[in-house]
Amino acid sequence: MPQFRVILVEPLNDGNVGAIARSMRNFGLDDLYLVRPCAIGEEATKRAMHGIDILKKAQTVFDEKEALKGVDFIAATSGVSTTNDKNFARIALTARDFAEKIRNTTGTVALVFGREDFGLDKELIKKCDFLVTIPANPAYSILNISHAAAILFYELQASGVEKWEPVSAGGIEKEKLYEYFAMLLDAIDYPKHKKEKTKVMFRRLIARSVPTTWEFHTLMGVIDGAVKKSTGGKLPKKKRG
Amino acid sequence: MPQFRVILVEPLNDGNVGAIARSMRNFGLDDLYLVRPCAIGEEATKRAMHGIDILKKAQTVFDEKEALKGVDFIAATSGVSTTNDKNFARIALTARDFAEKIRNTTGTVALVFGREDFGLDKELIKKCDFLVTIPANPAYSILNISHAAAILFYELQASGVEKWEPVSAGGIEKEKLYEYFAMLLDAIDYPKHKKEKTKVMFRRLIARSVPTTWEFHTLMGVIDGAVKKSTGGKLPKKKRG
Repeated sequence: MPQFRVILVEPLNDGNVGAIARSMRNFGLDDLYLVRPCAIGEEATKRAMHGIDILKKAQTVFDEKEALKGVDFIAATSGVSTTNDKNFARIALTARDFAEKIRNTTGTVALVFGREDFGLDKELIKKCDFLVTIPANPAYSILNISHAAAILFYELQASGVEKWEPVSAGGIEKEKLYEYFAMLLDAIDYPKHKKEKTKVMFRRLIARSVPTTWEFHTLMGVIDGAVKKSTGGKLPKKKRG
Repeated sequence: MPQFRVILVEPLNDGNVGAIARSMRNFGLDDLYLVRPCAIGEEATKRAMHGIDILKKAQTVFDEKEALKGVDFIAATSGVSTTNDKNFARIALTARDFAEKIRNTTGTVALVFGREDFGLDKELIKKCDFLVTIPANPAYSILNISHAAAILFYELQASGVEKWEPVSAGGIEKEKLYEYFAMLLDAIDYPKHKKEKTKVMFRRLIARSVPTTWEFHTLMGVIDGAVKKSTGGKLPKKKRG
């Protein structure tokens, strides 16, 4: 994974700067540069929440070059993309594709966000290695800058982060569950001609929901209870029909 | 694709409400409900930008039930997930997995967001079909509410291509199924202290598997059969425990 540096060029609204600092904290980033920013006041502090340290140690600089010092790749973000080959400087990657591409890079990657109204200037866009956009409603694709930042940060960590998966029940447990379900169908005198279909239905349904071990046992308990109650405690003939 | 309804329960900050309206516009959503909201003033208007129409025609209601009228699936969002199987009500899907699962559903899906400070209350979380979380830095996983919303909306539209899927069952059918399941637990004298957990387990399991109408009816037939057989044809007391 590369290191990321977030660079805001001429932010106009300090609330947005605070919100971006918070979002950086949410997604494990902490290197923030502000280029010719507005005054950073109370609103920024309020919205930074636990990102306040990031805001406090943000570097304020007057020149893009200073902010880009030590950077290996520049990714500029834009709300405007194009499919026009001629205007190649405006052909953008989606945030997801960018995250995929950048994930195995080492070095420092700058994520550059422009002014809330103008975006980034042409010269900077030409200089960048990646132009990244968030696909949105073509009728109104301009996101709030802190939303665009949050979605990009989210994508960068979503493509890398291990996600939690419940321990799903194993094959033996599942077979047991299906067997109990078949016993239940017997116990309730389920119509013979519908049995096979219903068993397959149950198998498919369970497979799709990928139950955890605990869920399997709970469900098994219910079915077992229903079988016992239905048969008055006598076990039905096994594996019939 | 389902229809989405965004429900904000007791939002405290009207700026956030405006930012969410804008984000809805960015991602092609337009049905907004506010449950017991703060006063919606200038800050909301300012931040709504081109989402102003969504904000203006938002429904303000005083009861969650009103906001959930006509909804087929409820997805609650939470900044807190758990890896503890027993605390199943808190086991959340990631926004991406949720988007994958929900995309071929028809009907109306509510995306419910709680208060900026407390989140959603326990009762609503129990009632929901999906609990959705944005995976973030474990050291600080609480996102600004409008950031969480923007990321979820983004994921819902990013999970693009429609493919053919059978028509999934609607809200009324599902409620009926859950009711039958509860009757079954009664009929088999299921331990009272485990009932609530088991019911929620069943609800989540079914929601995850997104059953078709036919599957619902088949499953309902089996459960109904089990109830009748267990009680010797007498109906158990309804909605006990």
